[in-house]
Amino acid sequence: MYEVELKVEADHERVRAALEDAGAGPVDHVRQVDTYYDAPHREFAETDEALRLREETDLDAGETTTKLTYKGPLVEAASKTREEHETAVADGDAAAGIFDGLGFAPAATVEKERERFALEGYTITLDSVEGVGDFVEVDREAPESEIEEVREGAQSLLRDLGFDPDEQIRTSYLGLLLGDVQ
Amino acid sequence: MYEVELKVEADHERVRAALEDAGAGPVDHVRQVDTYYDAPHREFAETDEALRLREETDLDAGETTTKLTYKGPLVEAASKTREEHETAVADGDAAAGIFDGLGFAPAATVEKERERFALEGYTITLDSVEGVGDFVEVDREAPESEIEEVREGAQSLLRDLGFDPDEQIRTSYLGLLLGDVQ
Repeated sequence: MYEVELKVEADHERVRAALEDAGAGPVDHVRQVDTYYDAPHREFAETDEALRLREETDLDAGETTTKLTYKGPLVEAASKTREEHETAVADGDAAAGIFDGLGFAPAATVEKERERFALEGYTITLDSVEGVGDFVEVDREAPESEIEEVREGAQSLLRDLGFDPDEQIRTSYLGLLLGDVQ
Repeated sequence: MYEVELKVEADHERVRAALEDAGAGPVDHVRQVDTYYDAPHREFAETDEALRLREETDLDAGETTTKLTYKGPLVEAASKTREEHETAVADGDAAAGIFDGLGFAPAATVEKERERFALEGYTITLDSVEGVGDFVEVDREAPESEIEEVREGAQSLLRDLGFDPDEQIRTSYLGLLLGDVQ
């Protein structure tokens, strides 16, 4: 399965009104604090890898979980497919201590509030990223044979919500925060 | 708190009989599969560090948990105090995938059955280590001021169980498996 996603900058008040009109259902509302690490033996910016510790608090339930994620370089450019490994960890401070001991250093922190909605088989995500801005993302998993169809559906959905899919932003929040040129 | 521990090679049948006579209570019975990693940027044998992924199966309950542990070099030689960070991980395969992606390689695996008993405030551990042998370990936590007293108690307990505490083995199971000289 592949992840098809489209992200544009967005005024959230306008999106919320449009989502309500369209009958979208709320999924969850979380706060995510992502710490990205530098490696002692590789330049991740050059090798196109990432090591991330994500602390996620469910703002409805008040529960916090921590996940550790490694993203490898692109294995297929067209579909943006990467090797990715992720596991929940019981003790986020201990996980940070392990990487600190191994010589990895926190390089950047991305903090955001994330609200998810479901609409026509797609997930609509409203992200408020501290120091970066507000965004709306439309995404859906698809088998390889349906990538184009699902992408067109996402574009059409963005248009229905009042956005121009041609204004798609491909840079990650980390990249935007660090001022990377798109 | 410090961990006082004494380990000797042992015939488990004899220990079990002695433990029963002494009225020791069974605590748990687990199988541990420990994978030790080599780092891409450091020689752990020289830096005196260790990175370990431990898969532990409770042989009574049938449940398996995985823990990730980093042990730093000795910060105080006399008490064998180390920087140590440990967290449970939900997905052991993903954790292995993360370290594989980062360039860490499995270096050695230590597999053992471990039975724990409680006796006079001490934990008595019977370890059957594959490819190494059978051992009994007596251990207890102690504040710095009571280390000597607790160590003498452990020696006395080993003697009561029929062992000579002077035959103490200080090498880790990993060290014994790899044939390190004590």
